[in-house]
Amino acid sequence: MKLSKLVGDRFKETPSDCVVASHALMLRGGYMKYVANGIYSSLPPLKRITKKIEEIIREEMDALDGQEVSFPVALPASLWEESGRYASVGSELLRFTDRNGAKMVLGMTHEEAAVQLVREYASTYSRYPFMIYQIQTKFRGEARPRAGLIRVREFTMKDAYSFHTSQEDLENYYARCLRAYQRIFARAGIPEVVCVASDSGMMGGNLSHEFMLLTPAGEDSIVLCPECGYSANMEAAACIYHTEEGSADGPAAAADGAQQDAGREDAALPAAGREDGSCGSAGSAPSALLPVETPGVHTIEELADFLHIAPSSTCKAVVYQKNQDDSYVVLFLRGDLEVNEAKLTSFLGEAIHPAVITEESGLQAGFIGPVSLHGPEGTTILFDRSLEGLSGLACGANKEGWHMTGLDLKRDCPDAVYRDFAKASAGGICPVCGRRSLTISRGIEVGNIFQLGDKYTRSMHMQYVDEKGNSRTPIMGCYGIGVGRLAASVCEAMHDDYGPLWPISIAPWQVHLCCMRGDNAGVRAQADRLYEALQEAGVEVLYDDRNVSAGVMFSDADLLGVPVRLITSPRNWKEGCVELSLRGDRASAVKLPEEAAVDGVLAKIRELTEALEAKVPERI
Amino acid sequence: MKLSKLVGDRFKETPSDCVVASHALMLRGGYMKYVANGIYSSLPPLKRITKKIEEIIREEMDALDGQEVSFPVALPASLWEESGRYASVGSELLRFTDRNGAKMVLGMTHEEAAVQLVREYASTYSRYPFMIYQIQTKFRGEARPRAGLIRVREFTMKDAYSFHTSQEDLENYYARCLRAYQRIFARAGIPEVVCVASDSGMMGGNLSHEFMLLTPAGEDSIVLCPECGYSANMEAAACIYHTEEGSADGPAAAADGAQQDAGREDAALPAAGREDGSCGSAGSAPSALLPVETPGVHTIEELADFLHIAPSSTCKAVVYQKNQDDSYVVLFLRGDLEVNEAKLTSFLGEAIHPAVITEESGLQAGFIGPVSLHGPEGTTILFDRSLEGLSGLACGANKEGWHMTGLDLKRDCPDAVYRDFAKASAGGICPVCGRRSLTISRGIEVGNIFQLGDKYTRSMHMQYVDEKGNSRTPIMGCYGIGVGRLAASVCEAMHDDYGPLWPISIAPWQVHLCCMRGDNAGVRAQADRLYEALQEAGVEVLYDDRNVSAGVMFSDADLLGVPVRLITSPRNWKEGCVELSLRGDRASAVKLPEEAAVDGVLAKIRELTEALEAKVPERI
Repeated sequence: MKLSKLVGDRFKETPSDCVVASHALMLRGGYMKYVANGIYSSLPPLKRITKKIEEIIREEMDALDGQEVSFPVALPASLWEESGRYASVGSELLRFTDRNGAKMVLGMTHEEAAVQLVREYASTYSRYPFMIYQIQTKFRGEARPRAGLIRVREFTMKDAYSFHTSQEDLENYYARCLRAYQRIFARAGIPEVVCVASDSGMMGGNLSHEFMLLTPAGEDSIVLCPECGYSANMEAAACIYHTEEGSADGPAAAADGAQQDAGREDAALPAAGREDGSCGSAGSAPSALLPVETPGVHTIEELADFLHIAPSSTCKAVVYQKNQDDSYVVLFLRGDLEVNEAKLTSFLGEAIHPAVITEESGLQAGFIGPVSLHGPEGTTILFDRSLEGLSGLACGANKEGWHMTGLDLKRDCPDAVYRDFAKASAGGICPVCGRRSLTISRGIEVGNIFQLGDKYTRSMHMQYVDEKGNSRTPIMGCYGIGVGRLAASVCEAMHDDYGPLWPISIAPWQVHLCCMRGDNAGVRAQADRLYEALQEAGVEVLYDDRNVSAGVMFSDADLLGVPVRLITSPRNWKEGCVELSLRGDRASAVKLPEEAAVDGVLAKIRELTEALEAKVPERI
Repeated sequence: MKLSKLVGDRFKETPSDCVVASHALMLRGGYMKYVANGIYSSLPPLKRITKKIEEIIREEMDALDGQEVSFPVALPASLWEESGRYASVGSELLRFTDRNGAKMVLGMTHEEAAVQLVREYASTYSRYPFMIYQIQTKFRGEARPRAGLIRVREFTMKDAYSFHTSQEDLENYYARCLRAYQRIFARAGIPEVVCVASDSGMMGGNLSHEFMLLTPAGEDSIVLCPECGYSANMEAAACIYHTEEGSADGPAAAADGAQQDAGREDAALPAAGREDGSCGSAGSAPSALLPVETPGVHTIEELADFLHIAPSSTCKAVVYQKNQDDSYVVLFLRGDLEVNEAKLTSFLGEAIHPAVITEESGLQAGFIGPVSLHGPEGTTILFDRSLEGLSGLACGANKEGWHMTGLDLKRDCPDAVYRDFAKASAGGICPVCGRRSLTISRGIEVGNIFQLGDKYTRSMHMQYVDEKGNSRTPIMGCYGIGVGRLAASVCEAMHDDYGPLWPISIAPWQVHLCCMRGDNAGVRAQADRLYEALQEAGVEVLYDDRNVSAGVMFSDADLLGVPVRLITSPRNWKEGCVELSLRGDRASAVKLPEEAAVDGVLAKIRELTEALEAKVPERI
C-alpha cells in the first residue's frame, strides 16, 4: 500500500472530547471517523487490525472445536419473549416494528438465537458437547457512549455458545475457553490482561469471569488482593467486615474506605441511588434510642459534621425504585460505605433506578431510619451486612428535621436479615485470604465468559434424550470478545506520546517504508526496489512515497504505529544502505546494505513474533 | 471436520413452502435455518461457503485498488436527509428512533456513509481516483421476502464506492469493475452470468448494469436479443414500435405482445396501476370521433370483446398517484401493452402507487380517455410512444357508461408528447439491431454496478480543488454483490435432484470422506489414516465417521455437495484400496491403492480448479 493513496487523514491536534489515548490516537491516525454518538466508520488501517484480531480469535475458537455460524442481527421479538429478556432488559435493547407490524429487536447478544438454531439438532445426548460462534456486528443502546471504541453503540463482537449435558462437562470446557481467551489476548499483544470474577448481570447464570486490561483509562473498578491473587470486578467483589479473628471491623478501619469515591454520597449525582443522611452519635456502650433535632441536615456528611462523629458511626439509607412497578427499595448500610448496585439488582432479580421520593410516599427524604419506617405498601427494606451487630449509631427518625442517636441494630431491628450489598473498598478485607490488602484498579473489560446454566435452555424448552431415554435440559456457556474494544485496549496498553505501538501480530502493516526526499530519482528508485522486493517476500508494507518533510513523514509513521521501519534517504542511498529500526525505539536503528534489507526485515519480524509468542500460554 | 460433530440436521423431505431449488436444498442440507420471514441463521456449511465467496470478492476488489473499510449498520437519519433519500425511499428503509429520541436508519446501501467518510479527505484532486468497499450485514424491509436466500430482509453484501474527477475516469474504472465482476462470478463457478443494462432506480445516476444468472427461478425479467446480443432488464429495456422501414408496428405484430402477462390488465391486481378500459373500433381510414354507449364495460378485454376489435386497436389509460402528494398520473398507451413502472418512476423522479379513484376526482374509472379529460388540478397526463401517429382507436369518453371510437391521436390530441413507458415483450423489436427477435428470460440479479454521477456528492456538498484551484464536485460509481444470494444462485445453477454440486472454489469442504461400515475396525483405521493424511496435506476434509447405512451416508453427502468423494469400505480395505469419485458423476469413480489416495485427491482438486480458472476472463 502506498501512503499517498491510503484513504484517511492524519491530524496533529487531539480532538477536545477525547478522554483516553486510544480514542485520540485512533482519530488522529486516520483509523476511524465519527458518524454519530458511539458510532464510527473504520478506515483501512483499523479494518486491517480488526481483521487480524478476528483471525486470531477464529483460530482459537476453531481449536476449541468451535463451529462458525451466523445469527441474524435483526431478530423477532418472540425469541426474546421466550427467554423473558424482552421484558427484563432495558432500553439498551433496541426494539422496533417492521413494516408488517411485527415486533423485532437488534441482537445485542445471541443466546436466544443460539438455542433456536440448535434446539432440534441437539435432541440427543450423543450430539453433546458442541460450541458454535460467530463474529458479527451488534448494536447496544448505550446511555453514555464514551472513550472512542471502548464503549460504543455499534460494535463487532465474537460471541460463542457451548452446550453441555453436565455441569462437570461445562466446567471443563469453561476452563479450556478461559485458557483460549488468555491465548487470544497474549497473541494480540496484551498478555497482562487479568481474569477476574464478575457479576453475571442480565446474562443470568452462576459463574462468570471478565478479562480486564488494567489501565487508568478503564471504566470498570477491579478489586485485587496482591497478597493472594484474588481478583474480582467491583460489581462481584464480596465485601467483608469481620476477619476470622472477629476484630477487623469498626470505625477506624472503615475510615479508609470512606475516602474512596466519597463524591457519590452527594444525592445529586445521577448514577447513585438517592442517599439519605441519617444521624446519631456512635458509642460503644449501650445507649437509649433518642431523637435529636437536626434542621437542614440531609446528607451523611452534614450529619456527621453536625454530631461530630465519623460517617462510619451512622446508619445510612439509600432508596431506589424498581423499574417494573416503581415500588420502593430502602437499603440501610453503614454510613461510610457505598451501595454495590449490581449486588442489589442481582438479589432483587430485577432492574432498579434511583428513587424519586414523593410526599405521598410517606418517606421523609433525608431523614429515613430503620425504626418505625412506614413506606408505602410494597416497599422492600434491606440491611447490609456492615450493620450486623452494631450499636450506638445515628440514623434518621422518619420525621422531617429529626434524627435518632443510640441505634442498636440487635435491639431496635430484631427482624433484620443481613446480606452483602456494599462495595469493596481499598484497604478492605480480602474475602479469600482475610488480609486487609485490597486495592482498587481501573480496567477495560476486553472479554467475558459465563456459565449460564439452564436459564435459556429451560425457558426456551430445549431438551435432549439422555442415555437412559429420559428427557433432560442441557446447560450452556457463553463467551464474548469485543473486537474493536480489543483493538482500542491494545492501543491503550501500547502507545507513546506520538502514537500506537502495534504488536506485530495485529499491526495494520508489518513494515513502514519511508522514502525521504523522493524527489531524488536515485532514492526513489531504491525505495521502489525495496517496496517490490518486500512485497515479493510476502511482507505487508506501507510505503510512504510522498514528497513531504521528514517531520510530517515521521509523525505520520508514529501515528500509524507499524512495528518495523525502513528508511531510505539521499545519504543512505549514496552509501548503498537503508536504515532499519523499530517503532518507538530509536536506539534500535541499524544501517544495512540495500541487498541485506529484506533479510533484515524478515529477521526483525521473526524476532518480534517470537517474543510475542513466548508469552502465549499453552492450550489445554 | 467430522460429520458426527457437524452442527445441523439434514432432511429427506422438501419443505412445502420452497419454490426454488436452492431454498429447498439449503434447508434440507443443514445450510441455514429459518428465524423469521426473510431472515435466516447460517449453519457451518453455508458459513464456510460464504467466507470463500467473500475472500474471492475481496481479492478482486483489492486488485481494483479497493481499500476495505467498514461503515456503520445503524446510521443517523441526518445523513439520509442530506442526500434526500430519507424522504424519497419507501418503507424498505428501516427507520427507528434511538433511546435519546434521535432518528436513525439501518443502512441498506451506504452511498451517504461513503461520502461522509471521505468528504474531508478527498478535498484535493491528487487524492483521486480511489475506491473503498466493505462486506457487511444489511437490512432491507422487503415487502415480500421469498425463495430462501434469493430475496431476504437481512443479508451480507459487498458494497464498493469509487470517486472520480471526470466522467472518462469513472468510465474507465467502471469497465475494470465490470470485468472484475465477471471474474468473481466465474471464480465462484457461474461464468454464464450475463451483464445487462438496468434501471438505476432509487440509486440515481445514469448508467447501470446488472449481472444476471438466467434461470427460471429468477424474479427479474430480462430482455435478450439472440441476434445481436442486446440484453437489458425489463425495467430498462427500451420498447420500440417502428423498425427503420417504418412498418413493424400495428395490430398483428402487437398481438404477440398482448399474450405476455395479460393477467395484469385486471384492475384488481394490486401490483399494477389502476387500469382503465377505453373503447372504440380500429380502422385504417380516417374516421370521425364518435361516442358509443358501453354499459358495464370497464376493462380493455371487455371493451375489445364488446366492439369485436383487437386490444391493440384501443387506447388504454393506466392511473397512478404520486406517493408524495397523491396527485394523479394518467398514462395512455396502446391497449395490448403493459406499463413499465420503472420507466414511469424514473421519468417522474418520484415514487408512485396504483391510484384509488374517488368520485371527487372527476375521473371516470373504466371510461378514461385522452379527449376532454378533466382530472383534478395537478394531474399529470402522459402518452406512451406506442400511440404515436395511430388513428381509428377506441378509447374512454370520460363519461360513465360511454367510450369513443375513431380516435386519431394526431388530430384529437395535437399537444401530446410521446415517451417510452411500455414494457418490452417477447417477439418485439430489438432496440439495437431492429429485428423482431426479442426474447424474455427470468434471471437472478447477483450483482449490480452504477455510474452515480454527482447525485450524492452534490447533495452532500462534497467538493475538491482541481489543478487550477477551482472547486469541483467529484462523481461516484457504486458496485454491489449480495454474498448469500450469490451462494444461492450457484446452487440454482449447479445442482441435481439430490443436492448441490458446489464448485471447488466455494465448496464447504474439498473432500467428503465416507467410511462405510465404520464398525469394522480395519475400515475405521484406514479412514482415520486417510483423514489425518489429507489434513496434513492441507486438504479440507469432511469425514463421515458415523455408523449409518450407505443410503443415509450417500444422501447426506449429496446434500452437502462436496466435489471430491473418497470412500472406504470393507471390500476396498481388504484390497488395500479406496474409491475416488466426483459428486454427481458416478462414472468418474476409480479405485486407488490407499497410499496413492492423497495424491489422487490433490490431482482431482487441481483438475477441478484449473477447469474453473480456464473460464475466468483476464483482468483489464
